Amino acid sequence: MLQVDLNSDLGESFGSYKIGNDDFVLKFVTSVNIACGFHAGDPLVMEKTVRQAMENKVAVGAHPGFPDLMGFGRRNMIITADEAKAYIIYQVSALNGFIKAEGGRMQHVKPHGALYNMAAKDYQLARAIAEGVHAVDDELILMGLAGSQLIRAGEEVGLRTASEVFGDRAYTTEGTLVSRSIPGSLIHDKEQAASRVLDMVLRGKVTTLDGDEISLKADSICVHGDNQEAVELVKYIRKALKEADVLVKSLK
Amino acid sequence: MLQVDLNSDLGESFGSYKIGNDDFVLKFVTSVNIACGFHAGDPLVMEKTVRQAMENKVAVGAHPGFPDLMGFGRRNMIITADEAKAYIIYQVSALNGFIKAEGGRMQHVKPHGALYNMAAKDYQLARAIAEGVHAVDDELILMGLAGSQLIRAGEEVGLRTASEVFGDRAYTTEGTLVSRSIPGSLIHDKEQAASRVLDMVLRGKVTTLDGDEISLKADSICVHGDNQEAVELVKYIRKALKEADVLVKSLK
Amino acid sequence: MLQVDLNSDLGESFGSYKIGNDDFVLKFVTSVNIACGFHAGDPLVMEKTVRQAMENKVAVGAHPGFPDLMGFGRRNMIITADEAKAYIIYQVSALNGFIKAEGGRMQHVKPHGALYNMAAKDYQLARAIAEGVHAVDDELILMGLAGSQLIRAGEEVGLRTASEVFGDRAYTTEGTLVSRSIPGSLIHDKEQAASRVLDMVLRGKVTTLDGDEISLKADSICVHGDNQEAVELVKYIRKALKEADVLVKSLK
Amino acid sequence: MLQVDLNSDLGESFGSYKIGNDDFVLKFVTSVNIACGFHAGDPLVMEKTVRQAMENKVAVGAHPGFPDLMGFGRRNMIITADEAKAYIIYQVSALNGFIKAEGGRMQHVKPHGALYNMAAKDYQLARAIAEGVHAVDDELILMGLAGSQLIRAGEEVGLRTASEVFGDRAYTTEGTLVSRSIPGSLIHDKEQAASRVLDMVLRGKVTTLDGDEISLKADSICVHGDNQEAVELVKYIRKALKEADVLVKSLK
Repeated sequence: MLQVDLNSDLGESFGSYKIGNDDFVLKFVTSVNIACGFHAGDPLVMEKTVRQAMENKVAVGAHPGFPDLMGFGRRNMIITADEAKAYIIYQVSALNGFIKAEGGRMQHVKPHGALYNMAAKDYQLARAIAEGVHAVDDELILMGLAGSQLIRAGEEVGLRTASEVFGDRAYTTEGTLVSRSIPGSLIHDKEQAASRVLDMVLRGKVTTLDGDEISLKADSICVHGDNQEAVELVKYIRKALKEADVLVKSLK
Repeated sequence: MLQVDLNSDLGESFGSYKIGNDDFVLKFVTSVNIACGFHAGDPLVMEKTVRQAMENKVAVGAHPGFPDLMGFGRRNMIITADEAKAYIIYQVSALNGFIKAEGGRMQHVKPHGALYNMAAKDYQLARAIAEGVHAVDDELILMGLAGSQLIRAGEEVGLRTASEVFGDRAYTTEGTLVSRSIPGSLIHDKEQAASRVLDMVLRGKVTTLDGDEISLKADSICVHGDNQEAVELVKYIRKALKEADVLVKSLK
Repeated sequence: MLQVDLNSDLGESFGSYKIGNDDFVLKFVTSVNIACGFHAGDPLVMEKTVRQAMENKVAVGAHPGFPDLMGFGRRNMIITADEAKAYIIYQVSALNGFIKAEGGRMQHVKPHGALYNMAAKDYQLARAIAEGVHAVDDELILMGLAGSQLIRAGEEVGLRTASEVFGDRAYTTEGTLVSRSIPGSLIHDKEQAASRVLDMVLRGKVTTLDGDEISLKADSICVHGDNQEAVELVKYIRKALKEADVLVKSLK
Repeated sequence: MLQVDLNSDLGESFGSYKIGNDDFVLKFVTSVNIACGFHAGDPLVMEKTVRQAMENKVAVGAHPGFPDLMGFGRRNMIITADEAKAYIIYQVSALNGFIKAEGGRMQHVKPHGALYNMAAKDYQLARAIAEGVHAVDDELILMGLAGSQLIRAGEEVGLRTASEVFGDRAYTTEGTLVSRSIPGSLIHDKEQAASRVLDMVLRGKVTTLDGDEISLKADSICVHGDNQEAVELVKYIRKALKEADVLVKSLK
């Protein structure tokens, strides 16, 4: 039976600042990526989010980012491979401490924001991230954009990888996401998005913005829960997967 | 045969900022306390310092502090027990990641600066720290001021503890350190300091600023290497311990 | 004709993190205290908030705090007088830059959170804050708790001061606020709160938690807009002041 | 009589971290660029450095950078024009507060590190910086790489500009600095460096790495004092300028 994971970013609050609808999202996903204190999250938030995820039987992953709280990790920063590797070891290990304190086990690591996007294209950066994850625990799964340099680097260092796809984003013919600033980059129609998800999961194919069909692997679908449209989309995707007899479960 | 540990704070550099004489100190001590990125240290510095310590066969510990880089963790902050516990889990786990990546094992945790001093007197804070350390790894040794609330809390949560003493600081009759702002609080004469160390290690006694003799346990001696006087003192203490047939070795 | 100012804290968002209901609050108050980037706020938020306040013809003040974003400036930190003065000059001047860029003029400075509370009781800290404000601009008004050390220090360095009162908080016989952790410290009934405000503004008197009546000066009333109850209270206070023929206007 | 300014970066210490040889450098330069707390510097360091500069009758400028203390502002970050402008207003105004508190007046603004280098080539970023400086005080001088987009932007917004040149760095035919990673980019011979400085100041010419001669304006020479070679170079340059009857003085 075919299966796929639904993942979402969680634990992005910081101190008195609240972001996201974590309680709600946990009801719909099978894996969560928890911020680690660099671009979002703080020790108290991490501890609480790990507990919530485990209570909801959702698989837990780390969501490391650039050291840029003011920019929420969404701004490109040019860092060296040594810096990238050390930042990954630091953040993943810090989150791991909370997971182990609760008697759990980390499932995966997915870089956040600009780090994720840069690592999709820059092999040297991707390799450093993969080496950092491997250094913490060689059984961790590295999640990255399907077909990206990050997936390639993960495989080359010997990690299990999870290819992530997006139902509500347009793809280029190279398999990268079309920038949000370009018209047509976002797919607002939930039926269309769900249909694209099924194409990716069942056939390993997606139609690009230019109308070509490309192949891609779909281990996990990225979903959000921070607004009503996003929530409706998740529900719709889950329904469509169920009707297609695709099992929705975490990566392990 | 009697034995004692010599510990020093290391890895306190940050980015382009260098502090300390780490290469040198590693030749003289048996344990090091490495900063974890809150009051000092950054991921690259932590990675490098862990490597250096392991190459020098020196036991490695974590040196967590308050989230106050501008104050170097030396300013009292009023935090809750929950915050303290989470800050400990975060910092100790982050450092642990670098140690495990190098194939090593963390020996101990010693809080830094204001956190150390506050936890010496405040049981609730001390307890939260001890619980944080225990949550990461219940075989870690908790190092704190001899006779302090931190040692008490460590024992109560079931951790092995290491009582730290200072050869160059005056003690009050209650067994706490006399504040540096009080005349006579610092002992500059290296013979006198070494003699006090021997008293503490061999007899478990120290003479207070008021002239009383109090008992205290001496598992580890705090030393520094950031100036010539400090270096001379370490050498002198090592010589005195050797002549007294005290084995200088790490805690495990 | 009697007059009083209504002030509220604004501009507390940071990066992607939003706090407060600034648009709304600006309709009800006559002065705002804008965070300066240490405990909350960032340069973009400061710029935007200054603009909004000026568009609404509301007087603008600085709201400097401890360098503790993770604790939102609500945690006591022990800093030196030199540090306090320099932190004030830095934050007030930074905000002043945005006000001047918009062609405005800063009206006042009100310390935030733990800095406000500590400066209410600690004259040395209060003095350092007052000196910092005076160093930036000796025509600035220093706002602090009515009857506090901060008001005293402001007067002693030659600043104009504004005594702040709270309609929804209980007072001790010493004129300080009763800690929120003590039963009865918060006044939820809006009629009672408005009645207390009138007592303070018209008669310069307030009844303490112990039932005594004490004198205090009421130049400005602290109000909030972050929940429905707070908004209802502001509206009710404005109505009560109007019926009592008290003019609600800024400090200058 | 021809004249030129000698400038150096100062006030880059942070908390307990010391960088640079500020006392010494102040004896040799006519202008200093003081860090503003984002990439280096803190309020106490800024206050002290402003005082030292004014005691030494050296002109004071702001040295704003990226919000990246861990990278010392040397790592490229992609920020928006709005962010850049607001970061400049914040940092320049904060430093200005300390200068005004001492009764002085800021002479200029020179962006630091990666912000300086990016603004040399990226007009949009340069323009945002120039607008930020202009918003704080339209009489400030904007210092940037001779021939750069930053100088162009400064002129376009109506600021006086100062073109900065380097005696110890190789130039490309486009007038930009040759990257430090390329052989021949650094000129270690002090006679050669001084000779190049004279060429730039007297004739407005410099020979590029490829052997071409290009024109450039030389209002200020960048010098350092953090090592013996740098100090020797400053002394040598001053001597050469004196022999050539060039007056060494600040920009105003």
